[in-house]
Amino acid sequence: MAEAPLYFPAADRQRLEPHLPPPQSSSHRKTTDLSPSSCSALPFVTLTFATSLDSALALGPGIRTALSGPQSKAMTHYLRTRHDAICVGVGTAIADDPGLNSRLDAAVVHISDGSDNDGRDMTGYRKDEGSSRNTITTHQPRPIIIDPRLRWDFTAQSKVMRLAREGKGLAPYIVTLQKEPPIQKREILEDIGGKFVILNAGGDDEGKNGSTRRLNWRAILSAVRQEGLHSIMIEGGAEVINSLLSEEANLVDSVIVTIAPIWLGRGGVTVSPPRTVHVDRPVARLSDTMWMPLGDDVVLCGRIAR
Amino acid sequence: MAEAPLYFPAADRQRLEPHLPPPQSSSHRKTTDLSPSSCSALPFVTLTFATSLDSALALGPGIRTALSGPQSKAMTHYLRTRHDAICVGVGTAIADDPGLNSRLDAAVVHISDGSDNDGRDMTGYRKDEGSSRNTITTHQPRPIIIDPRLRWDFTAQSKVMRLAREGKGLAPYIVTLQKEPPIQKREILEDIGGKFVILNAGGDDEGKNGSTRRLNWRAILSAVRQEGLHSIMIEGGAEVINSLLSEEANLVDSVIVTIAPIWLGRGGVTVSPPRTVHVDRPVARLSDTMWMPLGDDVVLCGRIAR
Ligand SMILES: NC(=O)c1ccc[n+]([C@@H]2O[C@H](COP(=O)([O-])OP(=O)(O)OC[C@H]3O[C@@H](n4cnc5c(N)ncnc54)[C@H](OP(=O)(O)O)[C@@H]3O)[C@@H](O)[C@H]2O)c1
Ligand SMILES: NC(=O)c1ccc[n+]([C@@H]2O[C@H](COP(=O)([O-])OP(=O)(O)OC[C@H]3O[C@@H](n4cnc5c(N)ncnc54)[C@H](OP(=O)(O)O)[C@@H]3O)[C@@H](O)[C@H]2O)c1
Repeated sequence: MAEAPLYFPAADRQRLEPHLPPPQSSSHRKTTDLSPSSCSALPFVTLTFATSLDSALALGPGIRTALSGPQSKAMTHYLRTRHDAICVGVGTAIADDPGLNSRLDAAVVHISDGSDNDGRDMTGYRKDEGSSRNTITTHQPRPIIIDPRLRWDFTAQSKVMRLAREGKGLAPYIVTLQKEPPIQKREILEDIGGKFVILNAGGDDEGKNGSTRRLNWRAILSAVRQEGLHSIMIEGGAEVINSLLSEEANLVDSVIVTIAPIWLGRGGVTVSPPRTVHVDRPVARLSDTMWMPLGDDVVLCGRIAR
Repeated sequence: MAEAPLYFPAADRQRLEPHLPPPQSSSHRKTTDLSPSSCSALPFVTLTFATSLDSALALGPGIRTALSGPQSKAMTHYLRTRHDAICVGVGTAIADDPGLNSRLDAAVVHISDGSDNDGRDMTGYRKDEGSSRNTITTHQPRPIIIDPRLRWDFTAQSKVMRLAREGKGLAPYIVTLQKEPPIQKREILEDIGGKFVILNAGGDDEGKNGSTRRLNWRAILSAVRQEGLHSIMIEGGAEVINSLLSEEANLVDSVIVTIAPIWLGRGGVTVSPPRTVHVDRPVARLSDTMWMPLGDDVVLCGRIAR
């Protein structure tokens, strides 16, 4: 796969703007949400992924499937520059060995407006702080991997670790229920600035369906916010998206879905959220929609209708 | 459900035009297709349906589900005026008791251009010939129901029969393998100008999966063309769409899919074509795509990529 830098035009960026976290997302409305279990502040949450017409993310478990065209791929990499964190489930980490960085071409897209807002201009780019190259690079999101039982057997050679070492991305935070992660794994992570974020199991963190322990979304997001991360894009995979839409769609601030004009066919890994609340009603609906054709694909932006 | 007339604006019609059957579809390219089993002419085939983001046509079998908004609904009714026939499977006939007519407002949409092309103007409307009302009405498509084993237990009160009697639609043709349909059913149909179209079982008409006999699409379409119908829109349901995409996508000239920004959730009736040819490759891809936002929905037009 070519790793060339990607370009996302200013006009398209402007159309996305109302669907992105505000530049100062720390003052986000959810901090004042007073529902019982939400005393702590939460980040701005963007749910974003690419599907086929038959709602598949991939041809099958573990089969990397190129769905979206170059323009919508560039959009995804632009979104990554506009969020403090990027989140995937352990299933995706294992299946795809993902990079979770942005390859947006900073040289092309950086537009200095003279402001010195956290070193970042209005389009979310900021001057490179971490890498050794003394050039302007794109802002990189913090990779967050949801891995309650530490199933991901990463090494120093896993792509996200390699990119962090090369200054092309940030080191991951792994959110888990395991109290004592293996010391070698900790070293690999901490060497490059990553870490384990350990949540307490308990209450509704205990899985309902038998042995599996699922993490509670509010707890995950609250932990993310406590790390100083004000916005997060949740990219997948299927289980993560289905659970979020079924159980905690109210935590999602913005939805940005790319749809490619292709039917992957039965057997794919599909977004198909279970009807947990009402068996005879739709799981979720979007309001304030904006459909943006990009190449052969379309990008749908909207908010979960309340 | 309100049965008010629907209005579809001229600008939107123009955008759809390249994806619709040509006004003179009798000279359609498929008449010269010389592949082994296709000596007979075939109609222009438009595959069209509305789905949720999770590729569902309905919340469940037999649950009528309003998916698309008023604008895309009007588009569907416009499409019906632009095709000689409209086709659904027996599953849909049983589940929905569908009308299969067009409720487009003829008074509003008729634009006379002075031409006398088969009594029809460029937008596919023509002066009413059949009904007793002496006004301009929209062109109505011929309903075609695919019912190999005659499972549909229709009566004179079924909606499509009622509409035909009232001059608001045409009487259906029922395509079947049953050599001798019950005489009472024949009378109901023939009274209003409908009929049974009897196909021969044989060769690949015999179902592969045990007892069920499925009709062969080429045979169905060839019979439709022999009835003088030059274009057909295939509207559903799920089994019909899945079989067409999996087995005979090459017979489809145009695809027009409405996508509503909603997740119906697991348990829906879904478009998810089986991978009959290659288990590890997409079933079908669209080329020459055009995405047209209509209200909250999007309409995707394209051609099956060869
Ligand atoms: N097209 C796209 O945009 C896109 C994006 C990302 C991924 N993908 C594809 O998606 C596939 C992977 O998806 P997947 O469904 O297998 O895995 P996944 O959603 O990435 O990860 C699921 C795992 O996350 C853990 N988890 C913890 N809390 C959870 C919660 N609240 N809800 C759900 N999961 C929770 C569970 O681990 P435990 O079982 O250990 O508890 C669960 O098995 C891959 O094929 C990948 O290519 C596609
Ligand atoms: N959203 C939309 O645009 C839309 C449009 C239409 C329908 N729908 C929904 O779709 C649902 C009905 O779908 P469905 O899948 O149950 O039924 P269906 O596709 O309408 O009908 C399937 C039946 O057609 C017969 N058939 C004959 N030849 C066939 C072939 N080559 N391939 C497939 N079927 C063939 C079979 O009857 P035998 O089993 O007797 O052989 C089969 O069971 C309803 O819920 C309806 O509301 C939605």
